[in-house]
Amino acid sequence: MAHKKMHCDCMENIRPLRDTLDVINGKWKIPIIISVGVGNDRFTDIQESIPGISPKVLAKELKDLEQHKLLTRVIIEDYPVKILYRLEPYADSLKPIIQALKDWGINHRKQITSSATTSADLRSDILLKS
Amino acid sequence: MAHKKMHCDCMENIRPLRDTLDVINGKWKIPIIISVGVGNDRFTDIQESIPGISPKVLAKELKDLEQHKLLTRVIIEDYPVKILYRLEPYADSLKPIIQALKDWGINHRKQITSSATTSADLRSDILLKS
Repeated sequence: MAHKKMHCDCMENIRPLRDTLDVINGKWKIPIIISVGVGNDRFTDIQESIPGISPKVLAKELKDLEQHKLLTRVIIEDYPVKILYRLEPYADSLKPIIQALKDWGINHRKQITSSATTSADLRSDILLKS
Repeated sequence: MAHKKMHCDCMENIRPLRDTLDVINGKWKIPIIISVGVGNDRFTDIQESIPGISPKVLAKELKDLEQHKLLTRVIIEDYPVKILYRLEPYADSLKPIIQALKDWGINHRKQITSSATTSADLRSDILLKS
C-alpha cells in the first residue's frame, strides 16, 4: 500500500484535453473544417461535400464552430445577400493535431491488423468499433 | 456551381482520425494510461487513483487497452498469484498527441474566455459543454 500513487492529478490533466476533444470530436466538426478549408464557402456547397449531414445539423455545427472562433460567417451585401463561411486563421492551430491523430490512426490500424497474436475476430472487433 | 469542390475525400481522411479518437476518447482510457504510467500497476491501485471508476468499467477498459496493445496484463507466479498492469512502449506513441491536445485545450480556454466580443453567457455555455 505504501507505494501506491495517490490520485494522480489525472483529472486536472484531463480537463484541457477534454476541452479539445469536445471541439474536434463528434461526427461532423472536422469534416466541416476540412470542407471549408478546401474552399467550400457556401452553406449548400458545404452540405453537399459532406455525405449524410442534414441542414439542421450543419447549421448547428457551423454556429458551434463560430462560437469556438474557428470560422466566421461573412455576410456579403449583394442582391441577394450572400452568406459565406471562412476559416479563421486560428483554425490552423488544429491542423497539426488533426494530422497527428490521423498519422497515429493509420499506424495503429497496421499495429492491430498485423499482429499474429490477435485473432481475426478480435481484430475486426477492435477496429469495427471505429 | 462550377467552383464547388466535390466531396472532398473528407470521409477517407476521417477514418484513421476516428480510429485514434475511438482509442483516446471516452471518459476513462487516458486517465488509466496516465495512472499506470505514473506507477500504479495493481488493479485496486489504478481504481483508487481514478475517482468515480467502477471495477466493472475498469476491467473492461483495461481489456480494451490490452487489445489495443497499449498495456499488458502481467501474471506474477507467486503465492498468491499477482496480476500487474504495465504500459507497453507503444503507449509512448500517444504521449505527444495527449500533450498536443492538452496544450490546445489550455490555449483554447484562454481564447474563448478572453474574448470581449463573446457574452459571458455564451462563454460559459461553450465551455460548460466541456
